[in-house]
Amino acid sequence: MEHTPAILELMIRAAEEAAHVVREQFRTTRTYQDKSSHQDIVTETDRQSEARILTVLRDGMSRLGYTESNIGFITEEQTTDQVQSTNFIIDPIDGTSNFSSGIPHVAIAIGFAEGEKTKLGVVLNPFTRTAYWGERNNGAYCRQESAEPRRLKLAQRPMDTWLVAAHFNGTDVAAEQFALYQRLYPHVRGLRNAGSLILDLCSLADDALAAVLNKKAFLWDIAAAGVIVEEAGGALYDLAGNPLSLDWQHPDTDYDLAACYPSSAHDLFDILQSEEE
Amino acid sequence: MEHTPAILELMIRAAEEAAHVVREQFRTTRTYQDKSSHQDIVTETDRQSEARILTVLRDGMSRLGYTESNIGFITEEQTTDQVQSTNFIIDPIDGTSNFSSGIPHVAIAIGFAEGEKTKLGVVLNPFTRTAYWGERNNGAYCRQESAEPRRLKLAQRPMDTWLVAAHFNGTDVAAEQFALYQRLYPHVRGLRNAGSLILDLCSLADDALAAVLNKKAFLWDIAAAGVIVEEAGGALYDLAGNPLSLDWQHPDTDYDLAACYPSSAHDLFDILQSEEE
Repeated sequence: MEHTPAILELMIRAAEEAAHVVREQFRTTRTYQDKSSHQDIVTETDRQSEARILTVLRDGMSRLGYTESNIGFITEEQTTDQVQSTNFIIDPIDGTSNFSSGIPHVAIAIGFAEGEKTKLGVVLNPFTRTAYWGERNNGAYCRQESAEPRRLKLAQRPMDTWLVAAHFNGTDVAAEQFALYQRLYPHVRGLRNAGSLILDLCSLADDALAAVLNKKAFLWDIAAAGVIVEEAGGALYDLAGNPLSLDWQHPDTDYDLAACYPSSAHDLFDILQSEEE
Repeated sequence: MEHTPAILELMIRAAEEAAHVVREQFRTTRTYQDKSSHQDIVTETDRQSEARILTVLRDGMSRLGYTESNIGFITEEQTTDQVQSTNFIIDPIDGTSNFSSGIPHVAIAIGFAEGEKTKLGVVLNPFTRTAYWGERNNGAYCRQESAEPRRLKLAQRPMDTWLVAAHFNGTDVAAEQFALYQRLYPHVRGLRNAGSLILDLCSLADDALAAVLNKKAFLWDIAAAGVIVEEAGGALYDLAGNPLSLDWQHPDTDYDLAACYPSSAHDLFDILQSEEE
């Protein structure tokens, strides 16, 4: 992939332009619309962030010599017309509920995939201005504004020191999630849920959180941060402990998602899969 | 209280000096000791932060003409010798588990009480450098570094838009907390647990989180942030909906704690107190 450095740079620039939109509109309005329920919402800022990202990526790819009709865009907030052999996967705001309530903890995520494999992932926290990125077979990095990038590397940690991201993803799956987390809780140091799955995956890659558990994750939640996790030495599973398998032909599919250090997976899934007492 | 502005300034300076300690030692070591369990730990940085705060407060109060033996210090990490009629209440790091895991989300909190009433509360987030403070009968404020202070003011919000801080506080109370949160979850937009009760109380005061639920909160978790919540228009309760009552003569007492906008309390406690299905 000859254009890799240029595409990575383009993705970071697109995320930074979206971050401007997000910061400018933060706490200016609480207007939102429900999507699937009152627990799943969208704001005008999600749409404007997504539009900004699409414009920057389309312009930039065209300048790199790509034909627009050969590039697909799989995005959270607009219907995806057609999955192509080369695709950008975009979450314009992960943590919309936080954003809408005035909690400055969200992510902008852009993945780039060739075939059915994500090659590049960029995640930006617009408030702390921390950028994370991963390039398949070339490592994962984190950079605080203009500081030198730092390579991300997971380590194995004793389970009784773990902080685990434990999300709740809607009333239809709540009973299952409460039961799962209640089984896990005595074994770990704590459960966390700061409201952005994507920032949690980056925190895992940065060797801070030790595992991330989620249901109803979509391709745009997983693609960019997934490369970052994997390139930092982590792995993605479903909640039964099987390696996560993504269905690129059906970009609206949702997934059970677990992520952790691979040598920790056996112990984690033993507990998650144990019978309730 | 003639010295109020000087004491408030002193408390902010003490918190800022402690913040230096916290930032300098962040991610330099994972060494910790268990306190009551593997879910309740202390680090050397907690102790150094506390020592720094005590030094600054003692020096400053002495310069203001106070006799040291008349001032009590109620702190998380050291035995409290004696509660006096005038007391500082200190949490040198709220969110020690986050700190120890490398998650930059913690608070430094200092309260100042005369008799059995907290008069001043200061909370500092050492990583975002956001300071919150409250002065009894004189409002609550928030300041981002050198920006102008912003007055904090709670508003009533519809419950289906609420984000609620839902903490887990140890295996002995976990079953009760899981049951409580599972009853509440369908009625609100989401549950959050970012790992610092004190920052959550400040987020409530800043009209972002809509309620905070916790068990086993101590005086040093409640004193400083409590003034900030109350001066922003919020109120503190136990988990049955009774106004929170603090036992100043027994500073090691732990409390069930709920905080929200007062007109929202009836609806909240109706759900929390409802029979399990």
